Amino acid sequence: MNEPQPARRPGGRSARVGAQVHQAVTDLINERGYGNFTVGDVAARAGVADSSVYRRWGGLEALLTDVALTRLNAQSPMPDTGSLAGDLRTYAAQVAREITGPDGLALLRLAVALAGTGDQGAQARDALRAERTRQLQSMFDRARGRGEDPPDAFDFLDHVLAPMYIRVLFGMELTPGYVDGLVDRML
Amino acid sequence: MNEPQPARRPGGRSARVGAQVHQAVTDLINERGYGNFTVGDVAARAGVADSSVYRRWGGLEALLTDVALTRLNAQSPMPDTGSLAGDLRTYAAQVAREITGPDGLALLRLAVALAGTGDQGAQARDALRAERTRQLQSMFDRARGRGEDPPDAFDFLDHVLAPMYIRVLFGMELTPGYVDGLVDRML
Repeated sequence: MNEPQPARRPGGRSARVGAQVHQAVTDLINERGYGNFTVGDVAARAGVADSSVYRRWGGLEALLTDVALTRLNAQSPMPDTGSLAGDLRTYAAQVAREITGPDGLALLRLAVALAGTGDQGAQARDALRAERTRQLQSMFDRARGRGEDPPDAFDFLDHVLAPMYIRVLFGMELTPGYVDGLVDRML
Repeated sequence: MNEPQPARRPGGRSARVGAQVHQAVTDLINERGYGNFTVGDVAARAGVADSSVYRRWGGLEALLTDVALTRLNAQSPMPDTGSLAGDLRTYAAQVAREITGPDGLALLRLAVALAGTGDQGAQARDALRAERTRQLQSMFDRARGRGEDPPDAFDFLDHVLAPMYIRVLFGMELTPGYVDGLVDRML
């Protein structure tokens, strides 16, 4: 939430409303589950008018898509530790922190819920996949530049990200040793 | 849907209502997404009274849990091909068919959605995990009896089931070659 202070620059109010609405969505998903609230509920929780939400996002699906994409792609800077194994371990640990954090499960469930819905859901899913692939690709390019032999991005999805996602979705713990083990096994 | 014909034995009507209500839930998840329908919608679609649904299931969450568990655990008989590799390849192919079938994505999304909700959701998730583990364990016991060295059930979850689940949830295709490859790589 690197939201500027309202007085400092134009657009501050708009950014503040955006952050309030995003937080309201995350809270409502945590409390009621995906699909059990309306644009009116979001607006009331955020303390803004329904019409502000409709004007900016058009409707609930577009808003949910925006929240999922913004939060899931708002990663810490990509690691650059000097070795492929170091980068992948650090990246996997970042993802683990993100999905086990306070809103992590809600966001993961939102991404899954959107994945099966209409055009905007498919767009959100594809954008998330593209962003993850782009992040990995830049890490792999650096590794290749150092003469290392990086894996396929799909191998990382299948054997590092997928087990972490499924374990969190199914209520199992992710220990640092487990996450490192997934990376080491893949390499 | 091994539903008995109504006239053949007592309990036929109850089984028929059960099957109609389950199908109505699956249809509504496919059409509207999880969370976007009520017990009244389910009853109307199934052609039964709301009170029949409330009497039998108590409420929507218990009904959704029942549907997810019944369908996801209604597997084909466990394979017994004479070798561990054959059993695991056949089992993985069965799961792939199940989750890419007409209701597969809806059921997978339902299981994920329930996984983060209240007690009944947690119960559904744990029961599903327990059932999958039990199925694998019986396969592994047979392998051990033949002098083979079976993997850990968690390795199968992490490196065969999780990639398949995530790929289906994220709209990617599962080819037979891909599924066999996951099993071979794990072994």
